This record gives sequence, C-alpha cells and structure tokens, in this order.
Amino acid sequence: MEEARGRRTRGAGARRRAASGRSGAFPWRQLRNPYPPVEVLTTDQVEAIHEASLEVLEDLGLRILFDEARELLRAAGAEVDEDSRRVRFDRGLVMEAIGKAPSTVRLHARNPARDVEVGDDKLAFITVGGPPNASDLERGRRAGSLADFGDFIRLAQHFDVIHVLNQPVEAVDVEPRFRHLETSLAMLTLSDKVPFVFARGRQPVADVFEMVRIARGIDAEQMRREPSVYTVINTNSPLQIDVPMARGIVDMARAGQLMILTPFTLAGAMAPITLAGALVQQNAEALAGLALSQIACPGAPVAYGGFTSNVDMKSGAPAFGTPEYTKAALASGQLARRYGLPYRSSNVTASNAPDAQAAYESEMALWGALLGGTHLLMHGAGWLEGGLTASFEKFVLDVEMLQMMAAFFEGIEVTPETLALDALREVGPGGHFFGAAHTMARYETAFYGPLVSDWRNFEAWQEAGSLDATRRANRIYRQVLADFEPPPLDPAIREELEAFVARRKAEGGAALD
Amino acid sequence: MEEARGRRTRGAGARRRAASGRSGAFPWRQLRNPYPPVEVLTTDQVEAIHEASLEVLEDLGLRILFDEARELLRAAGAEVDEDSRRVRFDRGLVMEAIGKAPSTVRLHARNPARDVEVGDDKLAFITVGGPPNASDLERGRRAGSLADFGDFIRLAQHFDVIHVLNQPVEAVDVEPRFRHLETSLAMLTLSDKVPFVFARGRQPVADVFEMVRIARGIDAEQMRREPSVYTVINTNSPLQIDVPMARGIVDMARAGQLMILTPFTLAGAMAPITLAGALVQQNAEALAGLALSQIACPGAPVAYGGFTSNVDMKSGAPAFGTPEYTKAALASGQLARRYGLPYRSSNVTASNAPDAQAAYESEMALWGALLGGTHLLMHGAGWLEGGLTASFEKFVLDVEMLQMMAAFFEGIEVTPETLALDALREVGPGGHFFGAAHTMARYETAFYGPLVSDWRNFEAWQEAGSLDATRRANRIYRQVLADFEPPPLDPAIREELEAFVARRKAEGGAALD
Repeated sequence: MEEARGRRTRGAGARRRAASGRSGAFPWRQLRNPYPPVEVLTTDQVEAIHEASLEVLEDLGLRILFDEARELLRAAGAEVDEDSRRVRFDRGLVMEAIGKAPSTVRLHARNPARDVEVGDDKLAFITVGGPPNASDLERGRRAGSLADFGDFIRLAQHFDVIHVLNQPVEAVDVEPRFRHLETSLAMLTLSDKVPFVFARGRQPVADVFEMVRIARGIDAEQMRREPSVYTVINTNSPLQIDVPMARGIVDMARAGQLMILTPFTLAGAMAPITLAGALVQQNAEALAGLALSQIACPGAPVAYGGFTSNVDMKSGAPAFGTPEYTKAALASGQLARRYGLPYRSSNVTASNAPDAQAAYESEMALWGALLGGTHLLMHGAGWLEGGLTASFEKFVLDVEMLQMMAAFFEGIEVTPETLALDALREVGPGGHFFGAAHTMARYETAFYGPLVSDWRNFEAWQEAGSLDATRRANRIYRQVLADFEPPPLDPAIREELEAFVARRKAEGGAALD
Repeated sequence: MEEARGRRTRGAGARRRAASGRSGAFPWRQLRNPYPPVEVLTTDQVEAIHEASLEVLEDLGLRILFDEARELLRAAGAEVDEDSRRVRFDRGLVMEAIGKAPSTVRLHARNPARDVEVGDDKLAFITVGGPPNASDLERGRRAGSLADFGDFIRLAQHFDVIHVLNQPVEAVDVEPRFRHLETSLAMLTLSDKVPFVFARGRQPVADVFEMVRIARGIDAEQMRREPSVYTVINTNSPLQIDVPMARGIVDMARAGQLMILTPFTLAGAMAPITLAGALVQQNAEALAGLALSQIACPGAPVAYGGFTSNVDMKSGAPAFGTPEYTKAALASGQLARRYGLPYRSSNVTASNAPDAQAAYESEMALWGALLGGTHLLMHGAGWLEGGLTASFEKFVLDVEMLQMMAAFFEGIEVTPETLALDALREVGPGGHFFGAAHTMARYETAFYGPLVSDWRNFEAWQEAGSLDATRRANRIYRQVLADFEPPPLDPAIREELEAFVARRKAEGGAALD
C-alpha cells in the first residue's frame, strides 16, 4: 500500500528548495552511450537483408538523374543505361567503395569547444530540420520566417544537450535565392555549434561552405580536411536520386564535408509494406548513395541514415514513432554497424499538437534510435506533425526528453561509498535518510534535475495555475529567448560574414536546382 | 528534404479508410518479450549489490512487527531480538529459502482463457492499483468511489492488452469493513481476469479468497494448488515490515496465492541517496520478505518487485519515470534474474495531469521495466500523480502505450516474401507501392493500428476540433463505458457471490489490521 501513499514523504526536504542549482541546467558534454545495442534482427536476418539489397542493386539498380554522377559511376565500373538513366551496381564495386568510408568523423565548430565526435560509443543530438511551418501556443501555426529561424537557433544554442544545428524551419519570408545566405548568417552568428547546409544546388552550397570557412577563420585547405558543416541526402524513393541530391553527394564528398545518406522509405507508400522489404530498399538506396560518395572522393565523411517508418493504410498518412518505426530504427543500426559506418536516426512524431501523443511517439522513436546505437540523432528537438511544423513547445519538451536520456546514459556508480552500508547503519530500521551525512554530501547533484517536469504536489500545482507540461514549455522557451545572449564572435569575422552576404545578395544570390 | 515533405503521400490510400478494421482493437494474447534484457550493471556490480544486501541482512537485519513471523523465522534459524523486534538473517538461511521459490507461476482466472503465465519470456500488463483519488476531465479530481472502481474495472476488462486486474482506486464511499467485499464483487462480476487482494488483515483476505474460489467454481484444495489472486507486499522501508504486511506474506504463502514483495525504496528519503545503496536496501528487504514467505510455505508463488525511484531533493517530493527510475528498473531485473524469480516493475509518473509529462515519464518507466525483463508490469494503465490519482484519460493513453510496446515485441518477420524483391521489381524506380499486389495482400494487418493517436493532416485534425490526445482519450473511455457489457457469469455463481457478500455484511464485515 506504500505505493499509493508515496507523497507522504513530501515536505521533509522542502527547506532545501533554494539550495539546488542544478534544475534544468544540463552542461555541454560529448555524450557516450555505454549500453550494447538492442538487436531486433538475428545476424542471419541482417545478412538476408544485406544480400537482398545487393540483389536489388545488381538487378534493378537506381535511376540517377544527375549526368555527372552517372559518368562517375560508369567510370568506376557500374553498368549505366543512358536511356533510362538506370545504374546497376556490381556488389564488389559497392562493397569496395563503402569500405573506404571512415567509421568515425569529427565535426568542427567555429568554437572548438563545440566540436563533436561521431561514431564509436559517442553520440550527438541535433535540432529539428526542414519544416515549412512554425508554431507556438500564442501565435498558432504559420509559415516559418527568418525570425522563427533565429529563435530556434537561439534555443539550440542555449540548451547544451543540443550538440549540432540543423535548419530548424524554412525562412519562407526570405526569397529562395537569398535564403541560404540569411539562414547561414543566423546560424553562424547566433550559435557557435556546427551548422547544416541544404543540398539545393552547386552555388548555394559553395556559398555556405565559404561562410563556414570565414566563421571558423581558416583557409580552404583546412576546411577541406576538417568537416565543419553537414547535409542530409534523401533518396527519392523508390530507387531514384534526383539532380540536387546526387549533386549534393558529389559536392559534399569533394569538399570533405559530412553527408548523411538517408532514404525516406515509408513502408506501404514509397517502400514495400513489409518492414523487411522496406529495409532492403533503404539499404540498397543507402549503399548506392554512399558508394557514389566514395567514388567521387574516397574517404569522404559519411553516415548511414535510417528513416524507415510506415503509413496509415487507412488514409495514406505517414506515421512516426510507431512500433514499426522503433523496430526499423534498431534494425537500421544493425545494418550501419554491418558496414562500419556512423548511424543517424531521428526523434519523430505524427502528432499535430505538442501533446501526450507527441511525447509518447517521440519516446518510441528515441528509444529505438538510441538503443539502436545512433551516433547522430536528428530532429532531436522541435519536430512536430510528421516534419511539417517546428514547434517551440515541442522543442522544450524534447530537450527534457533528451536530457533524461543523457542522464540515463550515465549508468549506475557502484563503489563501496555508493553501496551505502554506512548510511544504512546510521539510519537503521524505520529511520529517514534526509538528514544522513551520506545524503547531505550528495543531495545537490545526486539526481537529474528536470526542466519542464513539475513534481510538486497537486495542491501546489493547482495554486500555480494547473499548467500542463505544454504550457510550462511555452513559458520556458519565451524566457530563454528573452534572456538570450549570442556567443562571442570576433567582430572582424562578423563583418566579413555580413560583407559576404551583402555582396552575394547584390550579385543576385544563387539559383537553386 | 523529403523528410520535411512527408505528408505529400497523404490521400493516396484514403479510399481504404473504411476497409481496415484493426484500428485500436488489440486482441487478447499472452505476451512474450523476445529481446535479451538490457543490463545497466556488470555481473560484478550485481554481485557487489547482492553481497552488500546479505551483509545488511546479517549485520542490521529487519525490524519485523508481526509476532508470528518472528517466531517462524526464529524456528528456521534466524537471530531474533524480541526487545527490538529485530531479525538478523544468516546468508545461508536466506539463499536456501529463496531457492525454494518457483521461477514461473500460472495465474488462474475465473475464465481459463484469461489465465496468465508469469516468468521466462512471458509478460503481463496490470492496471493501476491503490490511488485514493479518481480523476477525469469533466469531473476533475475527487476521492475515489465504488462507481469509479467499477468503471476502471470495466476499462480493464474491455482493453485486452490489460491481462490482470488490480484495485484501481480506493472505494472511499464504502465503509472500510465492507470495502473488500464490494470491490471484490465488482472485480469478479464485471471482469473475468485475475483479481487482486489487499493484505489488510487476516479476515478480509480470507473473505476475498473465498469469493475468488466461488467465482472460479472450484474447491478449497484446487484453489490452494492454483494461484487465482495476488497481492503486493510493500516493506516499510527502511528495513521494517509491519503487522499487516508480514501477516500478508505468511497468509498468501500458506494459501498458495501469488505474493509480490516490493520494497518502496525512494532514494534520498526511505533509502540511501545513491542508486547503488537504494538497490542494496531494496534487495535486502526483498530477500527478507521472500525468505519469510518460503519459510512459511516452501514453494509458495512469489515475485521480486522493484520500485526504487528518487525524491526531488529540493522539495522532498517523490519523482517517478526519472532516468534514475529507468536505471533502477533495469538493475532490479538483473537482481531478480540473479535469484531466478519472476520480476515485477511499474509504469509510473509524478505528473499531476494526463499530459506530455505523464507520457514521457511513463515511457521512461516502461522502457526500463520492459527492457529490464519485467514479467508483471503493475500500474500499467491509469497511474497519475505519483500514485495518488487514478486517471481515466491516463488509462486510455497508457493502453495505447502498452499496445505499442506489445506490437514492438512482435519483432520483424524476415522471409523471402517479406524481403519483397518481387514487389520492388513490380514497382521499380520512382513508382508507388500503394497498389502493388504485395501491398494489397497485407494492408489490413501490416501495421499497428492506434487507439488514441491521430495521424490525420493538420487541416482535418483542426476541422475535427483540434482535440489533443488527452481529450481524445476522454472521449474513448466514455464510449467504452457506454458500450460496456460484462463478461458471461453463471447466474448461480453470481447469486452465491452476492449471498456471500450479503451474509458477511450482515455479520459486520471484517476488521482491518
């Protein structure tokens, strides 16, 4: 019956309320995942998927729309049909190319303290990327703006459990030919974390590379040696890669910048309805894109991205954070390890509101991703509505969930002191540990201190307005923005960045593919 | 960029909306967990906690307030100090007693189709148990009533992912001396699943045993051989067992009914502030209670319960679904397996509302419990506010989360057919799988169909009233109650149960300890 009377301990430590400064503040650090990955497939099943995907590459191949890519692949020994633009890959060619990719990558930020290692047992969390809409409780859902973009970057900079940036929302109010300039300027001035570039054409990508180089204050050669910006390439499933995506693979490889190859394989729509079949397709497309990268530039930094989910067969709507998604995330980690590549997964939900559904779908995705051995968790904070909206409240809720996972990765310390026999002797049967010396020495840092979670009793919570977690998240994000101060930036570098943007805008910006 | 445009596939399968009948209906079945448990402790660390807990039992012992229990333990060889009522346990005595406990248990329901296996890779989900309050969105939070009790039992009967009952809320409007009679009558007539008994005194427990026997239509000897009802014993941490709890251990063992020994070890309050220390105390208390059970009746059915969490050191409030809780749940599973005992854990949250916090804390608890190898998941549906409230909306949200976990446990089928090479050949580059033969043959059962989750696009969701998951859960529970029909019950048995209750009430009911 104790379980139903848990709250009776409340108040005994209330005098310490002001003493702990840990609550909600999570320090920057490179995370490590100490747990062996959970495996949803047997080794034989992994091999069966691997073999089937090689068969797809040999028999069906991919349609690749970018002439230069087909030329590169033909020269490397692939079988190219120019009429259908179909490229068929011999398994030896694919596996040899894949074998050239590095298994770990260091991402360099303009502040070296924000560098991130990718691979092995290390792991990094990344913001939402790409939604056309922004939303919050006051203003509702609207097309994203440059102001929203900046605000999400401020949140990403503030919360240190976020290690790497993405383009958190489309700045729809900026002309497309200038957008990459304005958003990169925001990323590089409001944050000192690693930025993202969309593979939307040769010139915009080159512009962003140059801005990142300026921000880091390095020369072109150092930039080529040190991955300092990254992109995601989604294949055009099934079995197709369009011009901007194939060009992005080639350009990122040649520039030595990180490319994450992520097929968007929704089982039942753009991929077979069976998870095994969707994984075969994901793997075939990933291997093809990764091979192209290594053929364009052997040793180029890449990661294997898994994004297999399922659609609702009643409506055709994509679903995320489903049990199928969780299983696919675990399986994709097994495939990435099969090839010795860093693995990227995501924190996703199909919910239209930052509510309980958003939370439990995100958790299903997070557990699949993280127990699956993810090295780069994309859409880590702010993703809502199947990726159509970046939500400010969801961002804060996600930060709490990520911080909890990071605390979970700390494991349990087992030492003579933590086994606490002395404390048990001191307190004895029927006693209380609040005042024990063992407790007093540790109470400020013993436990994870929450950001959003409210653990007060019902009456205190009710008196404070009965705010649910989503409304509390709203208050938190607004306070963070009100208090935000950008990280230091050499005024000369800022000036050079602004001058570059002004010049490129005066020149007419850049055409997208 | 595909990731940000996921919704573009919507509508292509809308014509099938009416075709699928799977949504939300999850069939009764004995669940199996196919995944190896996640281990947060090394084998050496498990042994260190084991050894330290034996040292606690030898050096400090437990204070046991029930005379008959001390007498049993003294006769078995424990060292008893009658003045302090302290019992010290030799490690040989403890381990020999624990060794007599069965590693699996079959729970018998009045409907044999609802029997449940506990142990090995099998797993069962149980409702919330014990809160003094009930809540829903319309009526708010109030003291629980017999009507609320019945409504929760109806939900537990309706949703087949719930395998076993608990006493979901206190029927505060029923006099304590009659409460066990009225609540047992509700459990045994509104449901055909295995019921729960509170260990609140010898006579009430005997009354419930008799009612369960009548409901099953069996004699006393068969009842003793077949566990048909279960209880939870919480030790009075630290290191103490009071009269009703110790009596419950003895009476359940002698009656052959399942007893789950669950220390309530909140790190920083009733247990050491370090997780390792709290686990030492949990393990010492669990071993003591389990040993008492096996000394009272060797081979009696028991389970090892883990309920270690932490308090908020700022306020003294208990916290649940924290990273510490998750780690303790995994570690407790390792300890239970160390002794070859079935393992019980829980789905818990400290949230005051059935909101996003309730969802993410429950998920943290669920993943720790289930990856930790839990066999009996208590408080599986409806637990809110640290166990002080049973929430109707939370019940439905939890059912969704449990169903998703059950679907996750189904794994991935890898066969020549599911690898889908024929489907990939049929569709080819740039095609669509909606109409493929491989899809048409499988679309009705391919994926988990949600109960609460809304996957419609934003506009459709908005037109339908922008209901968040909690409001949708409210509608669902009310509809289930409106449509509820109790399971079949032999009228003669119903009459006998009602006559028993009437007679015992006329006799004055039963005094609690």
